[in-house]
Amino acid sequence: MTDKRSRRAADRTEAIMRTTLELGQEIGYAKLSIEAVAARAGAGKHTIYRRWPSKGALFLDSLLSLNEPSLDYPDTGDIVADLRKQIHAAVDLLSTPPLGPLYQALVREAQHDPQVAAELNERFITPQAERTVARLKAARDQGQLSPDFDLDLAMAILSGPLYFQFLITQEPLTRDYVDRVLDALFNGMRPR
Amino acid sequence: MTDKRSRRAADRTEAIMRTTLELGQEIGYAKLSIEAVAARAGAGKHTIYRRWPSKGALFLDSLLSLNEPSLDYPDTGDIVADLRKQIHAAVDLLSTPPLGPLYQALVREAQHDPQVAAELNERFITPQAERTVARLKAARDQGQLSPDFDLDLAMAILSGPLYFQFLITQEPLTRDYVDRVLDALFNGMRPR
Repeated sequence: MTDKRSRRAADRTEAIMRTTLELGQEIGYAKLSIEAVAARAGAGKHTIYRRWPSKGALFLDSLLSLNEPSLDYPDTGDIVADLRKQIHAAVDLLSTPPLGPLYQALVREAQHDPQVAAELNERFITPQAERTVARLKAARDQGQLSPDFDLDLAMAILSGPLYFQFLITQEPLTRDYVDRVLDALFNGMRPR
Repeated sequence: MTDKRSRRAADRTEAIMRTTLELGQEIGYAKLSIEAVAARAGAGKHTIYRRWPSKGALFLDSLLSLNEPSLDYPDTGDIVADLRKQIHAAVDLLSTPPLGPLYQALVREAQHDPQVAAELNERFITPQAERTVARLKAARDQGQLSPDFDLDLAMAILSGPLYFQFLITQEPLTRDYVDRVLDALFNGMRPR
């Protein structure tokens, strides 16, 4: 492929993913179809299917292409402050359209489509978990966490309550809720 | 309605719900249809629709009709032991067919159908949470929990990691995982 053709292909891919997110916001994930994306993006249906085997796969790629840099961890040396700042940023994103409803739709789709679930884990959940674990490890090395604390587990107990509220009780995620979860997890439930 | 007619109606309702669970186990929730339930249960489609507005509503009722008594809380006076015992029982249920996959399907359906989500919360999640909170309150009154601990939050941080594993990472839920979560939540992440 010449540079020009390869650049054109990349532009087309980007246009298709952008259209997927736009349409997803407008009509919701359930009503989104590859046909509708193709029509609006001015692309052939088969062009889309050549690259993405399903609507779920296209949606996953489109959403992950946003690649929010604000989800990176700060490291100021204070683990609680840094976790709070990063999780506040995540909660702000999730509680504001378009990202919140779109991400919720992606998690729903993962519940139905094992391939989307595997890709979501491989490309978003696991890397994000690894960043959390790396930040927690630095904190443990500095004596800010109990030395025997299981870091993978720490990641799950940090994320779990947020997903519980996001997916199960479906109450709004707020910064205040994050603060209370962090306080509870750091201090533990036993009398002090 | 005479007693006999009302008993017959109750029997029919029970047969339809039992058939829903049987078929759900056999073919999975996605392929389940009210038509197929009606055919196997020997009931009219309209009989089913008169009582249940959607497949999700029928499935929710059917699953909740199982009403597992093992999810009740023991109270031996030792909060950690009692939580462990109750959550082990829940994990055993969720990790064993048929209940695990069926409950997962119900949670998925709740992600798509706000009415199912509202009923699931009202009839299962909230009462279960209230039982947990009542047991935690008794423990707090006995000095086994930090006196300023927010009990609703305690419930969310107990349940959250389990739902995270069940729905997001989709790794198997094990008794060992429960034990590690409980240990982490009671002791907290700070150095001791």
